[in-house]
Amino acid sequence: MGLSVDLNADMGESFGAWNLGDDSALLGIVTSANVACGFHAGDPDVMLKTMKVAVDNNVGIGAHPGFDDLRGFGRYRMQVPLPSLANQVRYQVGAAQAMARAAGGEVRHLKLHGALANMCSENQDMARACYEAALSVAPEIIIMVLAATAQQRAVEELGATFVGEIFADRAYNDDATLVDRSKPGAVIHDAAIAGPRIAEMVKAGAIITESGKHIETQIDTICLHGDTPEAVEIARSVRSALEGDGIEVKTFRT
Amino acid sequence: MGLSVDLNADMGESFGAWNLGDDSALLGIVTSANVACGFHAGDPDVMLKTMKVAVDNNVGIGAHPGFDDLRGFGRYRMQVPLPSLANQVRYQVGAAQAMARAAGGEVRHLKLHGALANMCSENQDMARACYEAALSVAPEIIIMVLAATAQQRAVEELGATFVGEIFADRAYNDDATLVDRSKPGAVIHDAAIAGPRIAEMVKAGAIITESGKHIETQIDTICLHGDTPEAVEIARSVRSALEGDGIEVKTFRT
Amino acid sequence: MGLSVDLNADMGESFGAWNLGDDSALLGIVTSANVACGFHAGDPDVMLKTMKVAVDNNVGIGAHPGFDDLRGFGRYRMQVPLPSLANQVRYQVGAAQAMARAAGGEVRHLKLHGALANMCSENQDMARACYEAALSVAPEIIIMVLAATAQQRAVEELGATFVGEIFADRAYNDDATLVDRSKPGAVIHDAAIAGPRIAEMVKAGAIITESGKHIETQIDTICLHGDTPEAVEIARSVRSALEGDGIEVKTFRT
Amino acid sequence: MGLSVDLNADMGESFGAWNLGDDSALLGIVTSANVACGFHAGDPDVMLKTMKVAVDNNVGIGAHPGFDDLRGFGRYRMQVPLPSLANQVRYQVGAAQAMARAAGGEVRHLKLHGALANMCSENQDMARACYEAALSVAPEIIIMVLAATAQQRAVEELGATFVGEIFADRAYNDDATLVDRSKPGAVIHDAAIAGPRIAEMVKAGAIITESGKHIETQIDTICLHGDTPEAVEIARSVRSALEGDGIEVKTFRT
Repeated sequence: MGLSVDLNADMGESFGAWNLGDDSALLGIVTSANVACGFHAGDPDVMLKTMKVAVDNNVGIGAHPGFDDLRGFGRYRMQVPLPSLANQVRYQVGAAQAMARAAGGEVRHLKLHGALANMCSENQDMARACYEAALSVAPEIIIMVLAATAQQRAVEELGATFVGEIFADRAYNDDATLVDRSKPGAVIHDAAIAGPRIAEMVKAGAIITESGKHIETQIDTICLHGDTPEAVEIARSVRSALEGDGIEVKTFRT
Repeated sequence: MGLSVDLNADMGESFGAWNLGDDSALLGIVTSANVACGFHAGDPDVMLKTMKVAVDNNVGIGAHPGFDDLRGFGRYRMQVPLPSLANQVRYQVGAAQAMARAAGGEVRHLKLHGALANMCSENQDMARACYEAALSVAPEIIIMVLAATAQQRAVEELGATFVGEIFADRAYNDDATLVDRSKPGAVIHDAAIAGPRIAEMVKAGAIITESGKHIETQIDTICLHGDTPEAVEIARSVRSALEGDGIEVKTFRT
Repeated sequence: MGLSVDLNADMGESFGAWNLGDDSALLGIVTSANVACGFHAGDPDVMLKTMKVAVDNNVGIGAHPGFDDLRGFGRYRMQVPLPSLANQVRYQVGAAQAMARAAGGEVRHLKLHGALANMCSENQDMARACYEAALSVAPEIIIMVLAATAQQRAVEELGATFVGEIFADRAYNDDATLVDRSKPGAVIHDAAIAGPRIAEMVKAGAIITESGKHIETQIDTICLHGDTPEAVEIARSVRSALEGDGIEVKTFRT
Repeated sequence: MGLSVDLNADMGESFGAWNLGDDSALLGIVTSANVACGFHAGDPDVMLKTMKVAVDNNVGIGAHPGFDDLRGFGRYRMQVPLPSLANQVRYQVGAAQAMARAAGGEVRHLKLHGALANMCSENQDMARACYEAALSVAPEIIIMVLAATAQQRAVEELGATFVGEIFADRAYNDDATLVDRSKPGAVIHDAAIAGPRIAEMVKAGAIITESGKHIETQIDTICLHGDTPEAVEIARSVRSALEGDGIEVKTFRT
């Protein structure tokens, strides 16, 4: 049996009169869609519309909760007490489940958004609080974690079902953290580079860092960005490079 | 088998640092709690806390969606397109289901809030859109309608399970509408009057108007207000008057 | 002395991570910018940025308050009590004044947005409440009104300084109301038609309706839309047609 | 000429249907009111009402901006980029100025709220960004700072007019920071202790710490809390103790 990997992207990040991202193009490439739940982006109309297209494209639907901060798009770190944060995750997951049901689908996975994700990749207790909250509402939910971070340690501690994720367009340090965005080469904008690089990591079963070091880790899904100008192009390149290398692109639960 | 009736009140209308109503007192009197879902009042913490006490008191939990208008407490009429309104109802019902699950309970009924309820008591299409939306997410949900209004006509048209509601503290016109709040006697503030008056209506199986006219209708539940100074006193009076007349106070699904 | 007219457009309608409209292109064409104030669109960053470009282009800055409804972009009618609505106008005007000061400019005019504008074009009391509120905060503010509507009657009743506005891209009925958007020809998408048509109205000093009827009215400014694909093209066409006909395009206070 | 001191309290922290604090009682005791500006609490109606009573009581009006976080009441720390934070301060100050003008008064001072205040008491750059923003909108505004913190260093660096503040009901460590709320004695709930303690500090011209150490500092105003059950009682005790010791209670600009 050959290698396979999932491709995921954040979706449904429009809000009211404002459009963001080219969801319909990405939904023809990815196999998992992380759908914003209305706190940092998305609204009930956007959620339903996005999930319907996901269902039509046989793309797995994920709840993508973030901080309750529309103005900052969930990108500002906030010190929310863990019990309140847990309830905010429950609320968003429940809302996503309802919209998925109305769209003829179901919420299959959870991925944290923005600053919430970043904080949870550093803080295992915070990650655990979020994941337990999601599981209390959706016991079958699959947790998508940033591979080799506190997010992964939290799901392992919980014994929950999870998939490990790496980034298609970000360079890695030797400790598996991301190279800071302010440094040259931190973000890969060239589709011709992004694709083969990811194919190499999947085949190696390891994050390959800037220095060339291999960090073995479980790579189940590749994160594609949806909100950059070159997003669709990079997505196509990654998919094509993977398939060209004989790696099947498919969702992690079929 | 004797008469029985349910008592319901709006709950969970606190928000963040702001408290409203004496939920814990009311939860010892009513048999159904209509819990705000975060759009006009309530937040995930308040929802969970309120629902936990409801579960502990064996009080039925209802989703109580309203317009997306925190500043106006859902009391301002808004002209939201029906498809968007339907999605807002779905979203709020889903969020309520998640919080109920986390509280060890489930959402059993739906009651519309404030201006949304008022508009739907006049507009059958709007009521139907809201109820269909709730049912698309929660097929078993029981719809609580203002008896003898467009709300009731909408559920009957849908063939959905519903319970009919009358107000403990509001006077009625001869066409079953409420006496305008600006008129004397429109709102009953005297607990000694409210209790016996409601008991009489339940026994008669009819709304008794100001003029004394009887409008036969299905009376399954009595709405008690939670946000007035005399709320708890009137609630006790109504319960005691009903029980004194041999009418059992119990939730509508046991 | 020849004819002159102002060109205005709604601006600063981005919010947080979401962009809307091509403000920088429009700010090279118009002479007045109506800047959203954060309730239906706009945020403090967007307001400052938009106003700075307006100052650099010598474009007059207007406060453009709307209903407190981000999700609906201020396009849903809301029944807000007039005293609260007046306070919301005050708040938004004050916020706009602060941002204008920080941008090195000042708020010169007021124009109501969306559903608030529509309701005030039908309801003189509501319009008056909004205008009085703005004047209580900014006594020198110039009120921009939809010509020949209840908005104009309200400013005339107040004796306030105002400018009358017509639409570049909307057809008019014989009673000076706009042709309903659902009807064919209601919205003019063809830049080649929009320009000459408006030049003709300005020269005639009258709204020219679909049937050809002339309704004499004070035409001080032409409203250009900023949020449609053809917005910039129509704006250029209108400006060029006016100038080609010897009508000077300049702001209404120089 | 004898000693004098100002008493300030946070006000206008109600929102929509939710009431908080006993503003009318406090406005009879304090000489400065810090009025919430709608981001963490307060709305245009509440602002106007509060400021009107302040004007009637000859109480100085302060703008009291906080983080844009209604749910957390501005108490959660947020990592907002400084330019955006500065714009949020401008916006809130401008809105407060408008409401003050409508109330027949003016905004005289600025005090930061909640987590924003706490972060600025530790981070001089952040404090400076907020103060410069306020001054860009209101050049005459007096900055109220937590005495002997980074807030004070920031205003001194700016050369801005400021007043120094100490807390009536909080114990101090030997480095002038507040004793952590989790420790016994951190918060003084006993009105009989709070009053004489503050009078002693004012006479000494120094913060007196838990250990008895004197930290000389400029004490212009005493912060009274408005949102605790004993708030009004402590406020009265402080005022009475000060006056009993011959210290005049008056606003800092007369």
